[in-house]
Amino acid sequence: MINVRRRATLGLIAGAVGVAAVTGVTVNANAAESAAPRAAVASKGDVVANPSLDIDAALSAAEATLKAAEKGGHRVTVVVLDRSGDVQVQLKGDGAGPQTAESATRKAFTAVSFGQPTSALSARVTGPGATLRDIPGTLFLAGGVPVSVDGQVVGAIGVGGAPSGDLDEQYANAGANTLR
Amino acid sequence: MINVRRRATLGLIAGAVGVAAVTGVTVNANAAESAAPRAAVASKGDVVANPSLDIDAALSAAEATLKAAEKGGHRVTVVVLDRSGDVQVQLKGDGAGPQTAESATRKAFTAVSFGQPTSALSARVTGPGATLRDIPGTLFLAGGVPVSVDGQVVGAIGVGGAPSGDLDEQYANAGANTLR
Amino acid sequence: MINVRRRATLGLIAGAVGVAAVTGVTVNANAAESAAPRAAVASKGDVVANPSLDIDAALSAAEATLKAAEKGGHRVTVVVLDRSGDVQVQLKGDGAGPQTAESATRKAFTAVSFGQPTSALSARVTGPGATLRDIPGTLFLAGGVPVSVDGQVVGAIGVGGAPSGDLDEQYANAGANTLR
Amino acid sequence: MINVRRRATLGLIAGAVGVAAVTGVTVNANAAESAAPRAAVASKGDVVANPSLDIDAALSAAEATLKAAEKGGHRVTVVVLDRSGDVQVQLKGDGAGPQTAESATRKAFTAVSFGQPTSALSARVTGPGATLRDIPGTLFLAGGVPVSVDGQVVGAIGVGGAPSGDLDEQYANAGANTLR
Amino acid sequence: MINVRRRATLGLIAGAVGVAAVTGVTVNANAAESAAPRAAVASKGDVVANPSLDIDAALSAAEATLKAAEKGGHRVTVVVLDRSGDVQVQLKGDGAGPQTAESATRKAFTAVSFGQPTSALSARVTGPGATLRDIPGTLFLAGGVPVSVDGQVVGAIGVGGAPSGDLDEQYANAGANTLR
Amino acid sequence: MINVRRRATLGLIAGAVGVAAVTGVTVNANAAESAAPRAAVASKGDVVANPSLDIDAALSAAEATLKAAEKGGHRVTVVVLDRSGDVQVQLKGDGAGPQTAESATRKAFTAVSFGQPTSALSARVTGPGATLRDIPGTLFLAGGVPVSVDGQVVGAIGVGGAPSGDLDEQYANAGANTLR
Amino acid sequence: MINVRRRATLGLIAGAVGVAAVTGVTVNANAAESAAPRAAVASKGDVVANPSLDIDAALSAAEATLKAAEKGGHRVTVVVLDRSGDVQVQLKGDGAGPQTAESATRKAFTAVSFGQPTSALSARVTGPGATLRDIPGTLFLAGGVPVSVDGQVVGAIGVGGAPSGDLDEQYANAGANTLR
Amino acid sequence: MINVRRRATLGLIAGAVGVAAVTGVTVNANAAESAAPRAAVASKGDVVANPSLDIDAALSAAEATLKAAEKGGHRVTVVVLDRSGDVQVQLKGDGAGPQTAESATRKAFTAVSFGQPTSALSARVTGPGATLRDIPGTLFLAGGVPVSVDGQVVGAIGVGGAPSGDLDEQYANAGANTLR
Repeated sequence: MINVRRRATLGLIAGAVGVAAVTGVTVNANAAESAAPRAAVASKGDVVANPSLDIDAALSAAEATLKAAEKGGHRVTVVVLDRSGDVQVQLKGDGAGPQTAESATRKAFTAVSFGQPTSALSARVTGPGATLRDIPGTLFLAGGVPVSVDGQVVGAIGVGGAPSGDLDEQYANAGANTLR
Repeated sequence: MINVRRRATLGLIAGAVGVAAVTGVTVNANAAESAAPRAAVASKGDVVANPSLDIDAALSAAEATLKAAEKGGHRVTVVVLDRSGDVQVQLKGDGAGPQTAESATRKAFTAVSFGQPTSALSARVTGPGATLRDIPGTLFLAGGVPVSVDGQVVGAIGVGGAPSGDLDEQYANAGANTLR
Repeated sequence: MINVRRRATLGLIAGAVGVAAVTGVTVNANAAESAAPRAAVASKGDVVANPSLDIDAALSAAEATLKAAEKGGHRVTVVVLDRSGDVQVQLKGDGAGPQTAESATRKAFTAVSFGQPTSALSARVTGPGATLRDIPGTLFLAGGVPVSVDGQVVGAIGVGGAPSGDLDEQYANAGANTLR
Repeated sequence: MINVRRRATLGLIAGAVGVAAVTGVTVNANAAESAAPRAAVASKGDVVANPSLDIDAALSAAEATLKAAEKGGHRVTVVVLDRSGDVQVQLKGDGAGPQTAESATRKAFTAVSFGQPTSALSARVTGPGATLRDIPGTLFLAGGVPVSVDGQVVGAIGVGGAPSGDLDEQYANAGANTLR
Repeated sequence: MINVRRRATLGLIAGAVGVAAVTGVTVNANAAESAAPRAAVASKGDVVANPSLDIDAALSAAEATLKAAEKGGHRVTVVVLDRSGDVQVQLKGDGAGPQTAESATRKAFTAVSFGQPTSALSARVTGPGATLRDIPGTLFLAGGVPVSVDGQVVGAIGVGGAPSGDLDEQYANAGANTLR
Repeated sequence: MINVRRRATLGLIAGAVGVAAVTGVTVNANAAESAAPRAAVASKGDVVANPSLDIDAALSAAEATLKAAEKGGHRVTVVVLDRSGDVQVQLKGDGAGPQTAESATRKAFTAVSFGQPTSALSARVTGPGATLRDIPGTLFLAGGVPVSVDGQVVGAIGVGGAPSGDLDEQYANAGANTLR
Repeated sequence: MINVRRRATLGLIAGAVGVAAVTGVTVNANAAESAAPRAAVASKGDVVANPSLDIDAALSAAEATLKAAEKGGHRVTVVVLDRSGDVQVQLKGDGAGPQTAESATRKAFTAVSFGQPTSALSARVTGPGATLRDIPGTLFLAGGVPVSVDGQVVGAIGVGGAPSGDLDEQYANAGANTLR
Repeated sequence: MINVRRRATLGLIAGAVGVAAVTGVTVNANAAESAAPRAAVASKGDVVANPSLDIDAALSAAEATLKAAEKGGHRVTVVVLDRSGDVQVQLKGDGAGPQTAESATRKAFTAVSFGQPTSALSARVTGPGATLRDIPGTLFLAGGVPVSVDGQVVGAIGVGGAPSGDLDEQYANAGANTLR
């Protein structure tokens, strides 16, 4: 089942959302009749949809992650990325170190890119030669957890700042569990 | 109506596509029973979908754009961006200058960000003070054309390299028209 | 008056929080007796404190900002920066454009740097020669609002994505008002 | 033998192509008589030519690569670089992960730089000290394949996103084989 | 005990310091009565304070570090970072190499992020797989020393350029000792 | 007429230059019989050639440019770019300022991109709105001069550091004239 | 007259300073007899010397600048650059905004590049077309002051953070005056 | 002995070179009497001098390096850096790969930073933990050779593109030998 927010955003199913709302540009309803330049119109048949968590779900998961870390007495930054690797939510807990934003972002990027928790991927990045670690933007320390719907990865949660990656992952999972 | 490719990709409608296919990581069908770490599972109700052109449509539009420019005797680079601003297609025509990739990308970024052709936005970026031109990644020269479906922006085509922005835009429109 | 969270974080007033908690490195209570390297110890007299919103306040303000924008039918990204210009909260609303994260961040950076709303600073960045616009990281479009306590700037809220900067600012102010 | 397109582009053999076409600047045929500044004129004897795939060949190879990956059920990005390391073609398949553009680009960069498939170079980048992996822009994972003409490297195809580098390479070879 | 400078800066304890002084923007004392845009006002209860060395202490430590290195006959760069990872003091000794600024900065960044001297962290970054070394901005060579007050990390000193990391660390400690 | 160096480099005309020489990788003559991975082989018909100055010509022009500036009593940096915008020659004269390398490079980039001297392009970049100045990598100050062969742009010379752009251009032309 | 420090550093006049001291690498006195690789040896006749302030002078000037700003009640960052544009001294005053490091650095860069105070250069960067403002790294706001010896620019002081550029410049001059 | 060029440039010994010549800004001889802003004047006693190769020597060495590589049948890029790590000369040989400019630059940077040939430093960068390889800008492959005068490092030559680092180093040495 698909919730109301999603339908409204997708537009392909529930109906059109004006260009203005999407882009911050007000397009008068009568613009179609004017000579003003407009967006080219494509057929629905030419479109794919990339699913992501909606912002409410992403924020709930991030908050639960941060609360779990605070409860554990650790100061962390939490990042939720969408399927494109863009930041949906970033929360820097009080006192979190200057390296935590980057760590959390890269762990989430790694998880959303490879579809597994970073802890499960660590075995794939050992050895004396080239590994996936060499791909820019990745970080294969524990603390990145992908999120999926119907078997498809839709985003990831990353945490940095706890004394160990295992703890970072535990907090990320605490957040992810709010999505079930 | 939604075509088959889209359904398969979305997964929310037509069924699940395995994590492996999405991410390049092979997940054995029996992995669910194992102790191996897996992606957290979210509810469909927490998901939004971001529509983009599929690669076939994006490539067709890009090719038509390039052919139009070649027919016009001009050497250009063509870029198609999705709604997240990521490159779907980039084609550098033979002899196109070293500045054309960046120009085309920024024009498309501007068009997808503001939902109008860059030529229509130029009036908004004049004046002696701060304007939208100050936003990183933008370029308000003609040659960027957004693409929409059901009134929602799903991507944009950008062209750089013709002797004038008007020509760049003309070629971008030639490509966009193949989508109708 | 100073709340409990602040005291615990500051450590200078309410008591010490272990290095481990700050940095994610567990330091055994007996480490002082060991030969292990430790942090150098400075005198309290050598310390200044840089006030920022706590994460709860920053998040509340960001959420109120996003809700106001959603109520207005606009899709925006909201960013809260601390006094150092670091991201405390970033929320990308569903459907917000690819340029909004950077816009929101730069508006907040400008507001926290110059201590006034970006809309109030626009008159200072007109003219044919060098202006504050030339300083990297700034954006003098409306939508950045500083937050102060006792007359001292402690952070800023930035919004990008509404059809006009005035609307962006209106939403930022809606969020800031939750702090009073 | 040299095809028509090449001759026209090279200009050294088949005749002059106007500056305007190369650069997007219209130069009137009578400009030579005017006082307008012009490009300095060098002797043919001072010129070398750097061969690359033409855009038609590069695009055919990229499309064949993508089709092979889709047939294999994998979601990849394909990049074709010229001898200078510039992007000629970039195609992001539907659902390809956010890391694939960079992976594909770097594999192709590595192949065009060292003249061998990245899989053949892996043995040169093992060991505990400095290796070619330390050179910026490289990625020594399988999936990058150089293309040569008459024993001279003219470009490379890179693929990222399949579950293994071997598969990435297999798809790149499928594309390269269309060039024979 | 808290010194005068700190109180004045903090503002939360000793009283308000005007926005103008903080930000370099002159705010007329009567501005409150005007319609001019102002900073939003937050409650003290929403604020945390991030302690750092004051500039006098940071500079003293940096100078002592540099003098120790000069006395040792070595040419180094010294950097003091605050808790946010921002540069408070940077001193490039005469003849220090072009790599020393970056080395010193990264050592200090590592020390302030992880709360221990970089020499003590080296054991945590060995091994064939992913380690903390993969986090951007870090450098786990000896020569970075954190500074704490009441058990809380408030900054770090980093040194680069001596013939060995041990010497770099010795000089950093010489500087840190001036803070006791 | 085409000189010997060019033929050898092009390979398409004068014969094959081994992959090893191109790429720095030694390929044994018998490798074809082995199972070792090799570059994919494309048809000559799929290749275009991008002409550039050879290094001897580029260096002669750069030296003549520098000598002219020294004779004029000015301290400059000279850059020669090829048609791809890559540096062929860079010479920093004694005492040239820290901004001159970037200035010279960008002037040359602008000239090679738009096929005219930067001084001739200045009229195209005035006005209150978006102009070509907004394209990254460009600099429309006098001192960039394109070089062409048979009407096709093959590179450019850029100069920075003289008291005026007119002088920078004069020196660039002095260098370019050595190519005739 | 040339002071002792300078002679020791230059080495060309007062005698050799070992490679080890310059570079942080210990070279044994007997290394010349060993087979160990060494630096190539150039003739004195091939060397030019680039004068800069020594670190003591640079630091004195920076401190005097900061004290003047503190006395004026303003919170600034002070940067001293050498003739190569590298940072010799950076001091961030307590409470200085997050934009001040970059502002101060760019003002100093501009002053050292063009040999005049930034305030004196402002008239050169007005107008509707390309100006020196387009050169990367520059900032033509008041507050950058070059330092010269015997008519030759040897560095510059930059200040950012006071309510006006005039004040920034006044403080920079206060620091520069300590050098006379 | 010090050659004429050096004296003129240094200015501290042979006499003043006007600010104009240094910076590209024309300063009228009578400017001292005017009210125009000028550079602050420092005492000679506050100045150190950083020796570098003059451009003639640097270019001769670079050319000899390139000739040696061409004679060896290899296509390389040659870079000469000064003591500050800035490029004095860059020569890209015909057909050199797209990775060679960065490789050559980083090898030279490493050599000038650590005062030894990169081949001699390789033993210092092995092992499973942090090493000097982690310092940004370095590359510890053979082919970087420092140049010294009177025991002081004044610059370095870097070469990239030959089939092995040993060959790159051999060519760099061939160039360095022209300096003796």
